[in-house]
Amino acid sequence: MSGNKFGKLFQLTTFGESHGKAIGGVIDGCPSGIELDKEAIQRDLDRRKPGQSAIVTQRKEPDEVEFFSGIFEGKTTGVPIGFAIFNTNQKSRDYDHIKDQYRPSHADKVYDDKYGVRDYRGGGRSSARETASRVVAGAIAKQFLADVKFTAYVSAVGEIQMDKSYQDVDFDSIEKNPVRCPDPEKALEMEEYIKKIRKEGDTVGGVISCVIQNVPAGLGEPVFDKLHAELGKAMLSINAVKGFEYGSGFAGATQRGSNHNDLYNADGSTQTNHSGGIQGGISNGMDIYFRVAFKPVATIMQSQTTINNKGESVEMQGKGRHDPCVVPRAVPIVEAMAALVLADFTLLNRAVKK
Amino acid sequence: MSGNKFGKLFQLTTFGESHGKAIGGVIDGCPSGIELDKEAIQRDLDRRKPGQSAIVTQRKEPDEVEFFSGIFEGKTTGVPIGFAIFNTNQKSRDYDHIKDQYRPSHADKVYDDKYGVRDYRGGGRSSARETASRVVAGAIAKQFLADVKFTAYVSAVGEIQMDKSYQDVDFDSIEKNPVRCPDPEKALEMEEYIKKIRKEGDTVGGVISCVIQNVPAGLGEPVFDKLHAELGKAMLSINAVKGFEYGSGFAGATQRGSNHNDLYNADGSTQTNHSGGIQGGISNGMDIYFRVAFKPVATIMQSQTTINNKGESVEMQGKGRHDPCVVPRAVPIVEAMAALVLADFTLLNRAVKK
Amino acid sequence: MSGNKFGKLFQLTTFGESHGKAIGGVIDGCPSGIELDKEAIQRDLDRRKPGQSAIVTQRKEPDEVEFFSGIFEGKTTGVPIGFAIFNTNQKSRDYDHIKDQYRPSHADKVYDDKYGVRDYRGGGRSSARETASRVVAGAIAKQFLADVKFTAYVSAVGEIQMDKSYQDVDFDSIEKNPVRCPDPEKALEMEEYIKKIRKEGDTVGGVISCVIQNVPAGLGEPVFDKLHAELGKAMLSINAVKGFEYGSGFAGATQRGSNHNDLYNADGSTQTNHSGGIQGGISNGMDIYFRVAFKPVATIMQSQTTINNKGESVEMQGKGRHDPCVVPRAVPIVEAMAALVLADFTLLNRAVKK
Amino acid sequence: MSGNKFGKLFQLTTFGESHGKAIGGVIDGCPSGIELDKEAIQRDLDRRKPGQSAIVTQRKEPDEVEFFSGIFEGKTTGVPIGFAIFNTNQKSRDYDHIKDQYRPSHADKVYDDKYGVRDYRGGGRSSARETASRVVAGAIAKQFLADVKFTAYVSAVGEIQMDKSYQDVDFDSIEKNPVRCPDPEKALEMEEYIKKIRKEGDTVGGVISCVIQNVPAGLGEPVFDKLHAELGKAMLSINAVKGFEYGSGFAGATQRGSNHNDLYNADGSTQTNHSGGIQGGISNGMDIYFRVAFKPVATIMQSQTTINNKGESVEMQGKGRHDPCVVPRAVPIVEAMAALVLADFTLLNRAVKK
Repeated sequence: MSGNKFGKLFQLTTFGESHGKAIGGVIDGCPSGIELDKEAIQRDLDRRKPGQSAIVTQRKEPDEVEFFSGIFEGKTTGVPIGFAIFNTNQKSRDYDHIKDQYRPSHADKVYDDKYGVRDYRGGGRSSARETASRVVAGAIAKQFLADVKFTAYVSAVGEIQMDKSYQDVDFDSIEKNPVRCPDPEKALEMEEYIKKIRKEGDTVGGVISCVIQNVPAGLGEPVFDKLHAELGKAMLSINAVKGFEYGSGFAGATQRGSNHNDLYNADGSTQTNHSGGIQGGISNGMDIYFRVAFKPVATIMQSQTTINNKGESVEMQGKGRHDPCVVPRAVPIVEAMAALVLADFTLLNRAVKK
Repeated sequence: MSGNKFGKLFQLTTFGESHGKAIGGVIDGCPSGIELDKEAIQRDLDRRKPGQSAIVTQRKEPDEVEFFSGIFEGKTTGVPIGFAIFNTNQKSRDYDHIKDQYRPSHADKVYDDKYGVRDYRGGGRSSARETASRVVAGAIAKQFLADVKFTAYVSAVGEIQMDKSYQDVDFDSIEKNPVRCPDPEKALEMEEYIKKIRKEGDTVGGVISCVIQNVPAGLGEPVFDKLHAELGKAMLSINAVKGFEYGSGFAGATQRGSNHNDLYNADGSTQTNHSGGIQGGISNGMDIYFRVAFKPVATIMQSQTTINNKGESVEMQGKGRHDPCVVPRAVPIVEAMAALVLADFTLLNRAVKK
Repeated sequence: MSGNKFGKLFQLTTFGESHGKAIGGVIDGCPSGIELDKEAIQRDLDRRKPGQSAIVTQRKEPDEVEFFSGIFEGKTTGVPIGFAIFNTNQKSRDYDHIKDQYRPSHADKVYDDKYGVRDYRGGGRSSARETASRVVAGAIAKQFLADVKFTAYVSAVGEIQMDKSYQDVDFDSIEKNPVRCPDPEKALEMEEYIKKIRKEGDTVGGVISCVIQNVPAGLGEPVFDKLHAELGKAMLSINAVKGFEYGSGFAGATQRGSNHNDLYNADGSTQTNHSGGIQGGISNGMDIYFRVAFKPVATIMQSQTTINNKGESVEMQGKGRHDPCVVPRAVPIVEAMAALVLADFTLLNRAVKK
Repeated sequence: MSGNKFGKLFQLTTFGESHGKAIGGVIDGCPSGIELDKEAIQRDLDRRKPGQSAIVTQRKEPDEVEFFSGIFEGKTTGVPIGFAIFNTNQKSRDYDHIKDQYRPSHADKVYDDKYGVRDYRGGGRSSARETASRVVAGAIAKQFLADVKFTAYVSAVGEIQMDKSYQDVDFDSIEKNPVRCPDPEKALEMEEYIKKIRKEGDTVGGVISCVIQNVPAGLGEPVFDKLHAELGKAMLSINAVKGFEYGSGFAGATQRGSNHNDLYNADGSTQTNHSGGIQGGISNGMDIYFRVAFKPVATIMQSQTTINNKGESVEMQGKGRHDPCVVPRAVPIVEAMAALVLADFTLLNRAVKK
């Protein structure tokens, strides 16, 4: 109930603060009989981990996951999968300066407002480090949904936008550049821009696009738990996310019905896909695609005026090793959350018919 | 679990199809001791109901709510509030033509895919008629949260966009025009445009903006159930919604941290509010504001080629009384869902401290 | 969250007070495609309703259920089934005397303690009238689980105990006497005893036994949601229940392992069934059986000293038409709750394997 | 949803198998600001651990808990408390003989039936070792509810029953004997009996009584989530439990209303307490008391005929170090589950009034 749980039948609960002993979680409801590829799980973790390229934070965290339960002789047994990633690189002293000060556009102050107490080291629970646990669970969800293909990539960094649609790019090129943009020219441009931003001690936002292919029709629940509503919630729950749109999205609001409607082919597929693979909250078998907007990282290497917990004005200098742009490392997180949503709806959908 | 329930502590379950005997719901967890203003509830229902102006569907449905329980001597008693709106205007024959045919960009086909059976009259459960139950519950949530002010309005119809921010308009003018746009000139333009679209037998999308004022700091749960994640889910669960953004939204993705960060004033308020009143998923006491994109209504008064449930190509002529643009009537729905989210987080927040 | 909801996937939410406009509920998650036998539903309601025999309360309430949604052309559609039983016999004046007074061993005072307000007419929400909604939902659950057989009966009234086990009686004889005891001689004895008790203005407790046959192996979830734990909770949630035991029950606590263990037959069945059809919280395919203890009805036709809401001592004379013994009418409630538990676990069990 | 989660607001999720790497859990929703006494937690674990006395299993497991998160500078922070107890004494070879065989009255076969796969080492997930995680969480719940006093003790072993009521014994004497029975003479008798049973290679059942004192009025939710219904579920979820009764319990079923009703004193307390501190599912401020029946441990040191997973009859000889009677070690588990229920209802109760 306290917001650290995701999913109904395929359910992830996470724990852990940025600089505590470990982060981790429990996956409850993962079906039995899945032969787990642990290397694939680690690969997704490596795509998220710090220090992987020149344009992300240079902190060194190996992010190796340790499984405690729920797996026997290489297979899931249907009981909870407990796991942890132990923290090895805890320079808590880096954070002494924020013990009593509130970083602008961070959650420091609201945690104090809400709980009356706060683990201030590295943002504590509000740190994006928590998302490593989501990547673990998402990687397992992907293996459960072996036939479904989840592909996320960076489609914008600041003002630099990829203008090709997902059909016009080669997904294999995503991992070939540190930005994770499938348009090689734009990728280079984005990379240069991020380096420039970093030099200026600044940060920049961006957009991640995600495509889910080979989804069977019928997933999603009507009314409140529409497939796109849960996808939206899943994405908006990722640190720094400011917006979500699927299918035609905000552009669809400017269109006319005569143009926007997706006419059927005889086989039940549609000629266009403004619907983004979802009708009335339920998958229709076409590709699901959506876009997620990320704000610029709040920690900048510049001096900012802020307040301390006595309400006094103080000058604060950003320190530590932070990302100039969050989207390259957020790509596997978007995929993981999408996989968790689809895994959950896949199980829920088994209950709908007599 | 089947998606007809919203909220954790302040919880709404709805039932009912477009052309069944009644729609309605149960509000479980509404606190005791709230003196209910039933006229205020009906006022919100009247803002949603068909036939209220020349630019909406001309169906006549009084949408009067009948309460069954949970209210005694004018006050909530803390036990479930059961209610229904009986359907009085069920021209089921209007829908015989869609019994075996799938309307483009409607949920007809996916309901058949999912459930193997479907109440085809007027879209059945997938009809936006269901949202009347949300408006009832939302109106009660508003009365619970008497100090919080929820204001939604139309900020775009098709390409016509209001370019003033919410601080620069008079909220009192929203209900003075049938579009519910607080910019009188744009409102007129939008109204004319909707009339023109209707004459052409077409429909158009739009955007609703919503502002929540006077929210105490501390609402929202960390990690998965962030305040904006639940608001996003709530909005995306409304029929025809394609996108959600809060605070700086998609535009924030183009910005730099040095510009986007909201610097603190000594009193803990912030100089700017790109954060949209939410930090790390928790309200910070500033105004919460967000935008919701609606696609054009799928039912158009034009002929479209589609398929029937045998996979045969058929010609379909749109019939019945439908909205040319959904946003004017969706304004109270957006407010209702926002109020349900805030009511739930208000109760959840009572549990966080020793 | 407020306790008016039962089940996870096959979920019932109920509303309604004893003397309000209606009681009813919403069944969310009932699978699609079930051909509903409405007469069978009414038959179960009739077994619960007041006035059905000389040994139960003589109030006249027809208890006819009206369905609002979720059923189309005689079949469930997979969307919520909303229903109500309208109250027709509301002699609220009967209850004016308890407006300010707390009946002994009733929930009057704790509702005031908890909510600060209370619908005092007939016990309001704490009235057993609420269970009629459970019977409706349970009857539908039974139809979903057409192969499973639920049989409850009265096995004790006061000190009069049936000493035959369920294998030694004829279930067809249960409905042949007003007590619903399958042992005709004991049934007569119980009937006479209840009549005597009533004449004395007193009430008496009793025990209901329940047998569930033809349950597939594998139902129930390990650890917290064991099949018998949910059955226990379901039974203990019925008004006036004080105890629950399954299989060997409290007598099992006196036994030795060498005697209590159920040895396997070659076909996987067991030679004895002290386990009551459940191992480690999961059904094993043998008969499930359990016993439920009910206290004597608290409303007696005698004068009792009690207090009012000012803490003053007052004399109270029991009035109205009440049951001298609750168990004959509680038989269909026990079956209904058992069916709801089994329906829910049947759906949950579809999610456990890859 | 898969049964490894307990509670709504104060919520425990557990993971771990008997012979896996670790067992543990996540407590989500523990309020912030609780100064944790870790020694008190360990004390409860020590009361549950194997090897603590001559009458329990002689396995050596230190059962030391390691906390990963949610505690900062000695206080809870309101975010999830992740913890683990690493397994140090995993003689998996002890269990090779049950790899393909089904122990009578164990969950071996139903796990295979349900999941199609099973961690057979020591019962895997169905092992009572899981309850150590409950004891950790329960000990924290007790510290949250510092004013409430939870006292469980053994009141019967086999046919040997303590005949004094809880008011007539000294709770301080419970921990003074290895059986945890507060009646010194009966304790000795029980101890001798357990030793005798063990020598015979047999096991025996027993009963635990529990008293909860100083509970504020108003806890518990009406209808399905009655306080005693959740207590009952909590107890029935403990391994080997066969029955639950509270207040007058099964004996109450034999009584008359005129005798059973608890008459009020002027201060709102009652003269008797057949109600067991709960009216209509809500605490009334009087002592809550209940009894829990445990079956004899299924693993006996005798030869039993059973079947293997091919349905062949095989002879099986009990091995390993097991408890001859489970109740002495189950005392802290009963207290822990009771504390979890009360903690949850305490938080839920904060949401009921305007």
